Amino acid sequence: MDLWYTEKQTENFGITAKITRTYVDEQTDFQHLAMIDTNEWGRMLVLDGMVMTTVRDEFVYHEMVAHPALVTHPDPKRVLVVGGGDGGVIREVLKHPKVEKAVLVEIDGKVIEYSKKYLPEIAGELDNPRVEVIVDDGYMHIAKQKGAYDVIMVDSTEPVGPAVELFSKGFYQGIFEALKEDGIFVAQTDNPWFKSDLIRSVNRDVKEIFPIVRVYCANIPTYPSGLWTFTMGSKKHDPLAVNEASIPEMDTKYYTPRLHKAAFALPKFVEDLVK
Amino acid sequence: MDLWYTEKQTENFGITAKITRTYVDEQTDFQHLAMIDTNEWGRMLVLDGMVMTTVRDEFVYHEMVAHPALVTHPDPKRVLVVGGGDGGVIREVLKHPKVEKAVLVEIDGKVIEYSKKYLPEIAGELDNPRVEVIVDDGYMHIAKQKGAYDVIMVDSTEPVGPAVELFSKGFYQGIFEALKEDGIFVAQTDNPWFKSDLIRSVNRDVKEIFPIVRVYCANIPTYPSGLWTFTMGSKKHDPLAVNEASIPEMDTKYYTPRLHKAAFALPKFVEDLVK
Repeated sequence: MDLWYTEKQTENFGITAKITRTYVDEQTDFQHLAMIDTNEWGRMLVLDGMVMTTVRDEFVYHEMVAHPALVTHPDPKRVLVVGGGDGGVIREVLKHPKVEKAVLVEIDGKVIEYSKKYLPEIAGELDNPRVEVIVDDGYMHIAKQKGAYDVIMVDSTEPVGPAVELFSKGFYQGIFEALKEDGIFVAQTDNPWFKSDLIRSVNRDVKEIFPIVRVYCANIPTYPSGLWTFTMGSKKHDPLAVNEASIPEMDTKYYTPRLHKAAFALPKFVEDLVK
Repeated sequence: MDLWYTEKQTENFGITAKITRTYVDEQTDFQHLAMIDTNEWGRMLVLDGMVMTTVRDEFVYHEMVAHPALVTHPDPKRVLVVGGGDGGVIREVLKHPKVEKAVLVEIDGKVIEYSKKYLPEIAGELDNPRVEVIVDDGYMHIAKQKGAYDVIMVDSTEPVGPAVELFSKGFYQGIFEALKEDGIFVAQTDNPWFKSDLIRSVNRDVKEIFPIVRVYCANIPTYPSGLWTFTMGSKKHDPLAVNEASIPEMDTKYYTPRLHKAAFALPKFVEDLVK
């Protein structure tokens, strides 16, 4: 029997992938969670009907959340990841030897549990001694922190379900206060083809809080439109001022020192959204 | 009744789009041709079951075929487009005032006919007096030209059906000879997620013929994986040596002077394919 998983990325468009096995298909306390095997992308984590990560293309998203900010900050000792229970961003964060402590705050413990069990190539570093895993509401955690982190990364789902408040101005203000005086934050901010209003409003909000705001893109084939944006807010350090020659070659499959500044060169229609 | 067009981009993965109307669904002398209206992407041209262009996202592909090469060549008077019967590349080529003559050689007259009828926003410049349209085999046309063109663009379908020979080394050798002594050519060379072998072999072939070979990418949401590569072969002028400040601002939605060099900064896994 041919089984296909189809995600309607919009009301009128979607992707469809042949699947060979379903491991998890359940409602957690926060969202619907599925873990399936696909022929094209390998094992896939799906939350509320949206592809979160696949074994084949996960490197793009996880590298591009982690490295631009960590390369921009000269001394990122303490890093917070909000969301990201699959552990992929944490794995990339740990590639930076200056990071002494990486804290993960994920609201849904089931994402962590199933990722450790079914996605060991992604979640494998969650037990690293430099990592602290906290199962809690990211918004509430941020609100309690003052000047605590060098870098904060928001690895949330799209702004539906538990992630809605992670796209609010109050959250970005909380992040500003949770950062040290030269702190940097970065968030995944969806795609410009179907979510241009979201990108525009997030950009406006972040610009009212952070003196330096930059947007960059990466290609993620299993995400809607394949073109993903990330918004960076920084108190002091500008990612465009980084000297390419000073960026270390890391064990990556997408990010390179040569790609660092290039990722911030936006297609015109995206540039126009965040002017 | 809900009608959906599904393209299996690989055996195990595809895209699906809700459609509202079918205008053409026929076998031409060369390929199957469909013209349909979709809710998400507007009108769509489909050849042999592969999305060729849509009204909503066509600008990415057409701009990114045309502008990088035309900006690199200091005086592109005579330009040849092989394939591209929808006229989108021609429209972009004409944005460069130095172009005196743009020749289109399309093997399938039906693509031109239906594009003029159903895609006027794309095909509208095919009747421009600076344009000559020839319905002929691109491979044979190239073989007859010697030192005739400043820039040659290959806007073909994927290497199936009539386009197979447009990915052969003999064709690239013919292009080299059809170009003037400082000529440049560019070809769409598919996507690195599903067609890495093709990109690798094209790159190897072109490097054996042209002294300067560069690969760049763009995001095209309705093409497989969303990440598209273009391969440029040049006799003299290097696209990476272009001074950004000298690039004119044009009426574009994707390409910008700021994006010119950035497009050549490749994801690591693509860089590795064309090393």
